[in-house]
Amino acid sequence: MKPLCWNTLSSTTILDVTPWFSVIEDSISLPSGRIIDDFYRIEAPDYVLITAQRDDGYILMERSYKHCLKEIILTSPAGGVNVGESPLQAAKRELLEETGYEADTWCPMGAFRVDGTRGICNAHLFFAKGLRLVAKPLLDDMEECELVFMSQDEIHTAVIDKKIPLLPDIAILSMATSTLFSSFTQVFAQ
Amino acid sequence: MKPLCWNTLSSTTILDVTPWFSVIEDSISLPSGRIIDDFYRIEAPDYVLITAQRDDGYILMERSYKHCLKEIILTSPAGGVNVGESPLQAAKRELLEETGYEADTWCPMGAFRVDGTRGICNAHLFFAKGLRLVAKPLLDDMEECELVFMSQDEIHTAVIDKKIPLLPDIAILSMATSTLFSSFTQVFAQ
Repeated sequence: MKPLCWNTLSSTTILDVTPWFSVIEDSISLPSGRIIDDFYRIEAPDYVLITAQRDDGYILMERSYKHCLKEIILTSPAGGVNVGESPLQAAKRELLEETGYEADTWCPMGAFRVDGTRGICNAHLFFAKGLRLVAKPLLDDMEECELVFMSQDEIHTAVIDKKIPLLPDIAILSMATSTLFSSFTQVFAQ
Repeated sequence: MKPLCWNTLSSTTILDVTPWFSVIEDSISLPSGRIIDDFYRIEAPDYVLITAQRDDGYILMERSYKHCLKEIILTSPAGGVNVGESPLQAAKRELLEETGYEADTWCPMGAFRVDGTRGICNAHLFFAKGLRLVAKPLLDDMEECELVFMSQDEIHTAVIDKKIPLLPDIAILSMATSTLFSSFTQVFAQ
C-alpha cells in the first residue's frame, strides 16, 4: 500500500527543558481521516559524533561514565552543536576539547535522525584522519574520560563484550568499516 | 583522567506519557562533589529492528511516512517489544505483521542503547534470512507502507540521496555489511 503524508492540525509544547530538549504533542489527521490527538515528538539540539583514526589505523575512543546506563563505557568523541556553529566546526571543537587532538582530514559521513518515531535530533557523523596531539583535553567535571586507542579487532571484541553499548557508536564505527559504505568518505568529500 | 561513577540522590518523573515514554529528572552528585539538580533522562519501551535478507541478497525495506520528519522515507522493519514478549518474539511478530514474511534463520546482533545522554531505550537488532511470504501484511492506518527489496548498491545510493535518513537503519545496515563485524552473526548465533 502506498504511504501518504499526515496533516498536522496543531502542535503544543508540553515540556520545555531547553537547552536539553522539549516535548511536543501534535494533533494529526491520518490519510484514513482518523484524528490522533496525542502524537508525541521530542526536539533536541543536534550533535556530532566522530570516528578519529590514527595513521596506524587505531581508533580514538573515550572511556567515560554514562548516567543513563549507570556504567563506565567506551564511546566515540561527541558533543552538541552550539548555536551559530556548523556541524564541522562543532566536530573540530569537540575533538580538541575532549581529546586534545586536531585532524588533517575531515570527511562528513552524513546527518541522520536519531529516532524514527520521536525524532529528537540529527547526529552528524564525521571521519577524522591525520591526528596530531596539540593540547591537553579541556573537560569539566561532567565529562571526565580516559582516552584509549583501539584496533578494529579490539573494537569488535568490545562490542561483543557490551563495552561499546550505544547505537550511535555502532552506526559510525560500522559505517566507517562497512563494505556497503566503502566509498562513503570519497562520496561525501566531493 | 580515570572516569568515576556518579551518585543518584533522587529521581522524579516529571512527564508521563506512557506507553510512549516518560521523562525523569535526577538529582546527582558528581565525583567532584558538585550537585546537579536537573539531569534529564527519557525512558521508553525497547524496540526491535530487522535486516531481512532474501536468498538472492536483496534486503527488505519499507517505504513509509515518518511524522517526525514529515517525509516518506525508506526504513527497516521495526516495532516495539510488548510486555511479556522476548525481543526475538517481537522481531518475528513485527516482521510478519508489517511484511507478511517469516524467516528460517534469526541471528541476534545485540541490543544497544539509543542515546548516550538521555538513554531512551534499547534497540534489539536482528538479521533474518531465508524469507518466506506466508501472509498479507496486517497494518493499521498509522503504519501504511510499501515493501521494497533493495540491492546493497541501491541501499548505498539511497543513503547518499537521504532516502534512508534514520541513524538506527544506518547502524543495522552497515553492521550487517561491515568488515569489522563480519563474524557477528556467527558470534551471536552461538
